[in-house]
Amino acid sequence: MSETSRIEAFSDGVFAIAITLLILEIKVPEHGDLGRALMNDWPSFLAFLASFFTIGVMWMNHHRLFTLIEAADDVLIGLNLLLLLGITWIPFPTALLATHPHERIAGLVYSTTFFVMSLFFQVFWGYATRREGIMSPENSAGARQITWQYFMGPVLYLIAIAIAFVSGTAVLIWSALVAVYFAFPASAFSRR
Amino acid sequence: MSETSRIEAFSDGVFAIAITLLILEIKVPEHGDLGRALMNDWPSFLAFLASFFTIGVMWMNHHRLFTLIEAADDVLIGLNLLLLLGITWIPFPTALLATHPHERIAGLVYSTTFFVMSLFFQVFWGYATRREGIMSPENSAGARQITWQYFMGPVLYLIAIAIAFVSGTAVLIWSALVAVYFAFPASAFSRR
Amino acid sequence: MSETSRIEAFSDGVFAIAITLLILEIKVPEHGDLGRALMNDWPSFLAFLASFFTIGVMWMNHHRLFTLIEAADDVLIGLNLLLLLGITWIPFPTALLATHPHERIAGLVYSTTFFVMSLFFQVFWGYATRREGIMSPENSAGARQITWQYFMGPVLYLIAIAIAFVSGTAVLIWSALVAVYFAFPASAFSRR
Amino acid sequence: MSETSRIEAFSDGVFAIAITLLILEIKVPEHGDLGRALMNDWPSFLAFLASFFTIGVMWMNHHRLFTLIEAADDVLIGLNLLLLLGITWIPFPTALLATHPHERIAGLVYSTTFFVMSLFFQVFWGYATRREGIMSPENSAGARQITWQYFMGPVLYLIAIAIAFVSGTAVLIWSALVAVYFAFPASAFSRR
Repeated sequence: MSETSRIEAFSDGVFAIAITLLILEIKVPEHGDLGRALMNDWPSFLAFLASFFTIGVMWMNHHRLFTLIEAADDVLIGLNLLLLLGITWIPFPTALLATHPHERIAGLVYSTTFFVMSLFFQVFWGYATRREGIMSPENSAGARQITWQYFMGPVLYLIAIAIAFVSGTAVLIWSALVAVYFAFPASAFSRR
Repeated sequence: MSETSRIEAFSDGVFAIAITLLILEIKVPEHGDLGRALMNDWPSFLAFLASFFTIGVMWMNHHRLFTLIEAADDVLIGLNLLLLLGITWIPFPTALLATHPHERIAGLVYSTTFFVMSLFFQVFWGYATRREGIMSPENSAGARQITWQYFMGPVLYLIAIAIAFVSGTAVLIWSALVAVYFAFPASAFSRR
Repeated sequence: MSETSRIEAFSDGVFAIAITLLILEIKVPEHGDLGRALMNDWPSFLAFLASFFTIGVMWMNHHRLFTLIEAADDVLIGLNLLLLLGITWIPFPTALLATHPHERIAGLVYSTTFFVMSLFFQVFWGYATRREGIMSPENSAGARQITWQYFMGPVLYLIAIAIAFVSGTAVLIWSALVAVYFAFPASAFSRR
Repeated sequence: MSETSRIEAFSDGVFAIAITLLILEIKVPEHGDLGRALMNDWPSFLAFLASFFTIGVMWMNHHRLFTLIEAADDVLIGLNLLLLLGITWIPFPTALLATHPHERIAGLVYSTTFFVMSLFFQVFWGYATRREGIMSPENSAGARQITWQYFMGPVLYLIAIAIAFVSGTAVLIWSALVAVYFAFPASAFSRR
């Protein structure tokens, strides 16, 4: 078991870089009517916003989990690396869907990415709460509320996959709404 | 309420990356007379400088605000995410105006970005000063001076929007001057 | 001798950025059948995964070494810079092998990169353990286990170089397996 | 006066990103004989190495200065921002000289960049040592040694500018040698 400050610092770095790299995928129009070109580029802007808020809210949740986690073992560090794999991957499906907003496969890659990430969060949190010595004992009520909120993750992103069969744009809007849901702390949904 | 060190670390990462990514927008000329090509690229260099100092000074201000902020709740974290959204966005209008210095729309996107960011700072600071438990109580005079300085932000960037109707280059110079104004601490403008 | 926290912070930044930049090398297909284009791009995805886990596990090991290191002198800072040189270099051979999976030279550059990095780790660790005042004295058993594990690094990556003469894809798979080996802590391989 | 930890964190981020972005300037050859294309690309590799070590050693020096600096005022934060402006700028002249190793103007831009940065370091250090309340008083001997070492910076980079009139490649080699000189701590050059 080791303390978690350097894991958090490395993770913060990855989150911060991935969220900032998103802007590189929006290309400056070269020729023609600039105003119209910017208008036509709305899928890029929408994809930027949806992915920005998803990464931002995942960072908020990572932050919340680590306020409850006191110590890490090698398995937890490995599972954290899986979470970060998902985070570094996000700029690719974002660019894919921004470039091909009407291709079903682009929407499917985008929504499946988030579905898999919600499973990674499940596995990470499941291990953290069950393995002894990781959680600070005084906050088991807060931990249980998070467990409940996270059960919704795979469900909500399965719906995103279903939406991808209809419209890539709708996937982006749905993903932004799911981000709003996870922006709320778990305690907001529990009867006290 | 939680302490703010990890919020600052994540924010520092985003500020540092956005300010460093600006250089990627300056392309190396491939063919022809290299000296002349570099000369002709002056809008890129000017845009790089104006955005570098704007992000740098926004970081300075973020740093100053967080020396007065003691604790954060979920709303403040969300409002901080809005500030970071603006910061990650800046490389795009910078590249847009560097590539199209004579297009009115490019200057408008650039100046409107900073206008909206100055509103984000207002909302962030308004919440921080009014919600109980966020500010450290012993420095309310310093907080009030900042409030006064920040009232100028939207005004100065509204002027930038007006300037954008005349000249994109002038927007860049004006923005650099506004950065100089905000580089000074709020206390520099108050009668003691 | 100075304390190591800022060396770790700078190193964490370099690791975090290098691991996140890998995704920039995967290009979004522009034209044609998008599903098929993504399928054909499997070498890019495999290279992304192999390099992601290699950098991630190197970070884990860097983290482990620095839990045993108490103080740094200028030589150690210089040797750490060599490690970071290797880390920042990795995105290039990754992109090279992803773009040219069937070129022997690409596989050789990729595997030689990791071989040289394993030598850098040897030199770094050899200096840290032999120079007085660097290691915390109470954990010499843990340090010796790491020394044994690290002797395998150059051997395993020499095998990678041999594999590169046969297949670039096999190099990627082998490298991912070596990453798994180094993900385990050194203590996992020692008879207690 | 405020403490310096967040200034260091932000600076570490900028240094780490700039040093890692250098690799993005090395492009993967697309067509033709891959081995020969890599050989012909040696100016890119040399420029990468020279700039990597220059940024790395500037980080080492920044780190050393801040072990002697106890507190920062707004002027010092502004001067630090000037240093960071130089750091974020480095990837551009690096790419310029890598792409145009035989153009005199490319070598001049590269060497002038480092000359100006050495002046920025002078101004920064001059302010830090003369303004009261910034330096920790117990280490004035160490501070004076650094002052002496830094006087050599502008001289050594003026020589680099002169070399640029002869050969861009020689500028890169000279810059790497200057980095070696500044890698040594100032105390290594003083008679004890």
